[in-house]
Amino acid sequence: MEHLTLAQFLGILIAMLGSARLCGWLARKLGQPAVLGELIAGVIVGKSVLGLVDPKVEVIHLMAELGVILLLFTIGLETDLRQLLRVGPTSAVVAVAGVALPFVLGFLVMKAFGSSNIIAIFAGAALTATSVGITARVLSDLGQLHADESQVILGAAVIDDVIGLIILSLVSGLAQGQELSFLGVGKTAGLAIGFLVVVILVGRIVVPPITRRLARLTMEEGTAIVPALLLALGLAWLADLLGSAVILGAFAGGMLLVGTPQHHDIETSVIRLGAFFVPLFFVSVGAALDVTTLNPLDSRNHGTLLIAACLTLAAVAGKYVCGYAAWWFKGNKQLIGVGMIPRGEVGLIFAQIGLSSKLLDEGQFAAIAIVVMATTFIAPPWLKALMPDIHKEGAPEELVAIAELTSHE
Amino acid sequence: MEHLTLAQFLGILIAMLGSARLCGWLARKLGQPAVLGELIAGVIVGKSVLGLVDPKVEVIHLMAELGVILLLFTIGLETDLRQLLRVGPTSAVVAVAGVALPFVLGFLVMKAFGSSNIIAIFAGAALTATSVGITARVLSDLGQLHADESQVILGAAVIDDVIGLIILSLVSGLAQGQELSFLGVGKTAGLAIGFLVVVILVGRIVVPPITRRLARLTMEEGTAIVPALLLALGLAWLADLLGSAVILGAFAGGMLLVGTPQHHDIETSVIRLGAFFVPLFFVSVGAALDVTTLNPLDSRNHGTLLIAACLTLAAVAGKYVCGYAAWWFKGNKQLIGVGMIPRGEVGLIFAQIGLSSKLLDEGQFAAIAIVVMATTFIAPPWLKALMPDIHKEGAPEELVAIAELTSHE
Repeated sequence: MEHLTLAQFLGILIAMLGSARLCGWLARKLGQPAVLGELIAGVIVGKSVLGLVDPKVEVIHLMAELGVILLLFTIGLETDLRQLLRVGPTSAVVAVAGVALPFVLGFLVMKAFGSSNIIAIFAGAALTATSVGITARVLSDLGQLHADESQVILGAAVIDDVIGLIILSLVSGLAQGQELSFLGVGKTAGLAIGFLVVVILVGRIVVPPITRRLARLTMEEGTAIVPALLLALGLAWLADLLGSAVILGAFAGGMLLVGTPQHHDIETSVIRLGAFFVPLFFVSVGAALDVTTLNPLDSRNHGTLLIAACLTLAAVAGKYVCGYAAWWFKGNKQLIGVGMIPRGEVGLIFAQIGLSSKLLDEGQFAAIAIVVMATTFIAPPWLKALMPDIHKEGAPEELVAIAELTSHE
Repeated sequence: MEHLTLAQFLGILIAMLGSARLCGWLARKLGQPAVLGELIAGVIVGKSVLGLVDPKVEVIHLMAELGVILLLFTIGLETDLRQLLRVGPTSAVVAVAGVALPFVLGFLVMKAFGSSNIIAIFAGAALTATSVGITARVLSDLGQLHADESQVILGAAVIDDVIGLIILSLVSGLAQGQELSFLGVGKTAGLAIGFLVVVILVGRIVVPPITRRLARLTMEEGTAIVPALLLALGLAWLADLLGSAVILGAFAGGMLLVGTPQHHDIETSVIRLGAFFVPLFFVSVGAALDVTTLNPLDSRNHGTLLIAACLTLAAVAGKYVCGYAAWWFKGNKQLIGVGMIPRGEVGLIFAQIGLSSKLLDEGQFAAIAIVVMATTFIAPPWLKALMPDIHKEGAPEELVAIAELTSHE
């Protein structure tokens, strides 16, 4: 872990925020969501091109994590629990199908390339978890968070993160030579589900009276955000301590504040705080990718590229089809499948565990990284292209109106 | 440098923000500025009591530095350059007197205790620099930033930081066995003054057309802050690279944006971002202090306490008197002197350099730390007690009205 001077730290922040700003603005000029620009900004300032930003540096890593926590907190603040529960069964089916299909397809691809069972399980598992951060940000950029399809996608992405965590704990065990344990599977799943249920049940009773009391205290300008932030950070911390995902805690924290008197104030402040932290996360994701392994002119990359292409196809097809798993859903099923495509941090964590435990070689590691990269870059423009359909197919007038009102564009 | 997990990082943030919030609220309940509560919060969560927060951990240190940068940026956003230039000569006289008197008094105290010349120079130098952060925050908490006295204090504190930097570079040289060089003194002083003059002259021409152009671009909600933040971070970075103080850059950045069309939006957003970062700075300052060296029941502390008491007296008297150096100033001269009393990070840096170069022993180091602690705790309630006078003595009706309008209470 490198020691940073203040000047180096400021320089890195300037490079990350400046490039994110510029590329995000260009992406929007080209009719794409800003997050695509921020990922490209990460590729540019990261090791692939300029080498200015190393996302493994502790302070950058931790501030990027704060970014994803704030992002999920904002999403939680815009999530109507009743609507989420209404789409709950649909989300669950989409999530389960969206984990199973890419896993099986990824497993088969690796077996076809002659890999061992354990490597095939690893590669399949790395394809399972949707990056809720990227999809949520795209939906938010497009002003579509309140559409039924978006709620199904977000619900499924949250469930799929829970499943991803379970698989991760299993696969980490495999990497250490442990055998699969039903007890371990049950414990991880129970913790994540129990955490969400308990937090929401208890929070619905405890949070409103506290926020009413806080509303009566005099506060300095702009500091009403701090108690809300403490709730989000506290639940994220608790989730992490319990062995669950921090983003579950942050998301639950946001949902608990929906409908409180300070809801609007808090959201305004969190968005401003997020304007600083959230781009750090997306630039970090971009900076972690090494695009030199994509150069097709270098014949050493051909094997990796072929595996990567097949895995990417498996990753995209698996999620695309899962949108149709909820056959009874009246909205745009294609949109749901495409919304589930982006992989991100969880996929990269799988790849990193595989590499550090010597199960995956450099090529297999790069192939998984390329899948994450490709799915991340494919989804935003695809979602954007599909979005006009939401207005034509099935979305009630009222939802379209809300979506337009809350649009940030 | 300890490696932090995400859960540890979140836990530290929660401890810092939560205790700052609670103690800040209690301080206000008792009629004191919130910053006093935040410093006490730091003592509680720091090594003196709970040991939860170590301000030397890289990520905490760097985020606290961002806090002081944002604080000075906010102060800059509320600083009228014309008013500052009007009080400029007064500030300069106060600053020079406020550096010279504590230095001489501190030097004499250490000689009286039988110290060598170099140790006496070190201790005297550690008493010179006012902590502009603490004073500015108190004045802001009291809604008095626009009063003439406040402008004199801020101007003097900025000048005094420049002088402090020069002395620091000289004393560091001494600690390494170098001799005093007039060339070195001139270079450090020239850089700091030149930086401010060039940035303000160039910025006054370059910044307004850029902000007008940016105002015409569509932006996502809440992200108008990013270009402004890039200006502040960029100037802070530049100041640091040139060997000057980051806070000079941040302060200049704020001043350049006064009067631009986005001024109000930027200020609103920076205050919200500051609500997160600024308390981290004050809690860090509190957490760095070891109050166990103050225990008078432990006879091992008596020598240290006696030196500390004499140095504190020298530190307080030296700055108190400097308020009267500008004999022609019509405002409250006592208020100016008291506003210059708080020492902070710069004093602690002196102490740390002295300790690590083996010039100061543990007792002398602790004595300087106690001076920083004592002056920091004395000034806020004293300023608060003096503040009603500003309304009685000499402040024009108009300024009182502005002060009341901009009051955050």
